[in-house]
Amino acid sequence: MSETKSPKKKVAAIVGAGPGLGTALAWRFARESYTVGVFARSGETLRQVQRDVQDAGGHAGAYPMDATDEAAVRASFARLRAEHGAPDVCVYNAGIFKMAGFLETSPEDFEAAWRINCLGAMLCAREVLPAMLEEQRGTLLFTGATASLRGGPRSAAFASGKFGLRALAQSLAREFGPRGIHVAHVVIDGIIDTRRAQARGGPRPPHQLAPDAIAETYWQLHRQDPSAWTQELDLRPSPEKF
Amino acid sequence: MSETKSPKKKVAAIVGAGPGLGTALAWRFARESYTVGVFARSGETLRQVQRDVQDAGGHAGAYPMDATDEAAVRASFARLRAEHGAPDVCVYNAGIFKMAGFLETSPEDFEAAWRINCLGAMLCAREVLPAMLEEQRGTLLFTGATASLRGGPRSAAFASGKFGLRALAQSLAREFGPRGIHVAHVVIDGIIDTRRAQARGGPRPPHQLAPDAIAETYWQLHRQDPSAWTQELDLRPSPEKF
Amino acid sequence: MSETKSPKKKVAAIVGAGPGLGTALAWRFARESYTVGVFARSGETLRQVQRDVQDAGGHAGAYPMDATDEAAVRASFARLRAEHGAPDVCVYNAGIFKMAGFLETSPEDFEAAWRINCLGAMLCAREVLPAMLEEQRGTLLFTGATASLRGGPRSAAFASGKFGLRALAQSLAREFGPRGIHVAHVVIDGIIDTRRAQARGGPRPPHQLAPDAIAETYWQLHRQDPSAWTQELDLRPSPEKF
Amino acid sequence: MSETKSPKKKVAAIVGAGPGLGTALAWRFARESYTVGVFARSGETLRQVQRDVQDAGGHAGAYPMDATDEAAVRASFARLRAEHGAPDVCVYNAGIFKMAGFLETSPEDFEAAWRINCLGAMLCAREVLPAMLEEQRGTLLFTGATASLRGGPRSAAFASGKFGLRALAQSLAREFGPRGIHVAHVVIDGIIDTRRAQARGGPRPPHQLAPDAIAETYWQLHRQDPSAWTQELDLRPSPEKF
Repeated sequence: MSETKSPKKKVAAIVGAGPGLGTALAWRFARESYTVGVFARSGETLRQVQRDVQDAGGHAGAYPMDATDEAAVRASFARLRAEHGAPDVCVYNAGIFKMAGFLETSPEDFEAAWRINCLGAMLCAREVLPAMLEEQRGTLLFTGATASLRGGPRSAAFASGKFGLRALAQSLAREFGPRGIHVAHVVIDGIIDTRRAQARGGPRPPHQLAPDAIAETYWQLHRQDPSAWTQELDLRPSPEKF
Repeated sequence: MSETKSPKKKVAAIVGAGPGLGTALAWRFARESYTVGVFARSGETLRQVQRDVQDAGGHAGAYPMDATDEAAVRASFARLRAEHGAPDVCVYNAGIFKMAGFLETSPEDFEAAWRINCLGAMLCAREVLPAMLEEQRGTLLFTGATASLRGGPRSAAFASGKFGLRALAQSLAREFGPRGIHVAHVVIDGIIDTRRAQARGGPRPPHQLAPDAIAETYWQLHRQDPSAWTQELDLRPSPEKF
Repeated sequence: MSETKSPKKKVAAIVGAGPGLGTALAWRFARESYTVGVFARSGETLRQVQRDVQDAGGHAGAYPMDATDEAAVRASFARLRAEHGAPDVCVYNAGIFKMAGFLETSPEDFEAAWRINCLGAMLCAREVLPAMLEEQRGTLLFTGATASLRGGPRSAAFASGKFGLRALAQSLAREFGPRGIHVAHVVIDGIIDTRRAQARGGPRPPHQLAPDAIAETYWQLHRQDPSAWTQELDLRPSPEKF
Repeated sequence: MSETKSPKKKVAAIVGAGPGLGTALAWRFARESYTVGVFARSGETLRQVQRDVQDAGGHAGAYPMDATDEAAVRASFARLRAEHGAPDVCVYNAGIFKMAGFLETSPEDFEAAWRINCLGAMLCAREVLPAMLEEQRGTLLFTGATASLRGGPRSAAFASGKFGLRALAQSLAREFGPRGIHVAHVVIDGIIDTRRAQARGGPRPPHQLAPDAIAETYWQLHRQDPSAWTQELDLRPSPEKF
């Protein structure tokens, strides 16, 4: 009998996939022959990311989804699994950055910041962990910010969500690391260049992080040997004060 | 005409007032002649705290309230202001401590932990800050935990809420400190003896924090001179490993 | 008639006693009827501190000493013990604050910063711990700085010494806390008003910490009940950015 | 025939080069065609590292040196520069790990721990920075430990030195990052397998970090694009509790 089953392609899920870091992450994993599932609220954004990945020779499946909506997250990840298999790596890169004085922050704003910066990550982790635990391997990467470590005078809502995300990442690392799942939290300390990749040929705005450079570090985190895993690192442009 | 208006008594609001730390805090401020408003979900709990404060010669007004319910928080603080005046100090001491493996934690559990450990503090801060800013003075104290600094293997929900609370405290300190409001976060690293005060005459369970000792430090924080304010400190029993 | 021995007066040792915080600490403990031993390199400085304490009705013994010189530290503490008894509390407040670019910092500068900011504390702790361990009580307080938590662009030498001091404080707290010794580290985040107390009657320079306010917090740390000890806290003036 | 000058080979300096991580680092950089200078106190150790690198097809120059001796450090780095050129990357990996109760730690022990864990790094940084600043590029990597972040009950001396090293790394990063020098501090949280590489073919002792895995992360840090540099990361084996 001659039929051989082709080995399953590895799968990366990128949640919060915009023209900057999301696209760069999709590219980086696509370059390593991963099938990439990109998740974002706007179908339009996703189509552009998808095109940008395909133009670079990769393949990306697009999953429109509100990451703060439990049912939507469940459904979208089910579709990814059905179409491409369970992800080997999942990056939670969604979030909103909004500064406001505390008394100008409504409880609704405060809650919305928590939902997208923290709860969404919890919902996605729930979807990908069971298959990873079965395989006893997998990687969860979380995108943090300066505000993950420091609550500033106009960032009560944002920092509160990002601190929460960091706690989640630590908890998952301590619970699932010994079971083979690598959980890392990346503190991005600076502004990411979010122009579409095509526009990034020219000079980079000074003091901004290049998405491809960030994506390279995410990839290296995923590649780390289990005998020497990183739980947290920071990334910032060389001229940045910190 | 001889009538002199008596000076307004100072007011302390204690949110999350149970038989342990809540009662000790109420006592400590009552001993300094503050009128104390105690807030908790259960009317029964509140009545007991009230009795314990009165037995010790103080006065406590009881405000049954779900600290995670915006309308209830607004109404209860309005009542306190109408009955006793705007608080000079507000302690947010509510929270639930619940450990669970991540995959046994539902999104509802995760959200509930955030609501009581973090959102409630935001709702209360909104109620007390405006009058404090007018006076250019006031104190906000937040009760943190070991999990405010470290996400553990079974504390994803709890730590995530407590990290969020710490971010809120830092943000408020940095926004309102220069305007005269002292905001401090107390990391309680250990188990608090939560027996009713009457039961605490005998030997204290080893390795537990005495509520009166904690309350003393909260009082000293409130007393600090603005030229040397503490934003964060830890408290633990001497035999505790850390 | 049976002769009764008067109870031994309590003793506080203040190492690094200048006109600002050192004097304020000496005062604060003297006010509680402690005999205060003040230690500094310059006899002239010590005499002034001594006079200032005596003018305020307290008593201070002066111990000229280079805190980085092992033999001198041993001899001075022996004198204190002989004259007044072993200290119940010891504050290490010596240090030098000197900023310089790294390539303008000689190995000698780097070492000198470590000796006074870190090694001296180790030498003093060795002198006071044995008697405290016998009594199963005592307090060690260490004065830290912003640079205890953050190495800045021109503070390689200073921060390196202050980080070392913080490590020492943590190690001592973890080793001796369970044996009854309270070890705390105070992060002073700002400039201390170091004018002599007499000059401090007028308006305080804005953005500076008042020595008396700092000393009050040191005193409160010493007073804390062993069931709720603080290992670290920060102090800064209300308008300070941080 | 016109003679073309061969491009200068890149140079890596590895200070603290033993059979475990030192050899792995030397290998990793040698594999990328770097000339590697290895520095250690014992000539015997160095010869073995050198042989192990050569067996793997690389080239290592051996520089016996006591990293805490200023004159020796100056002379050894001068030799490296004369023989191979100024280093593009310098790893400070020296240190001694010794636990002892505080009262069993002599001032000499305390100082010795600081000299090798902290001062030596300062001396080496002084040797390599000037040429790096001229080139406006270069990498300094420092090997930290769990004790870089936490002073434990028996680690006063070790933690104090390692905290100091971390302060140094932060100060250098903040001063020289904007001038093109990448400074990173690696917190190794666990025990490194220090058997010679040849002995590492079999199963790795559980809970130990594999030197090659650590070295891979050091190499990736060196490779990072200046638009997204890491200043600090941790490394630990997946089963390690933290």
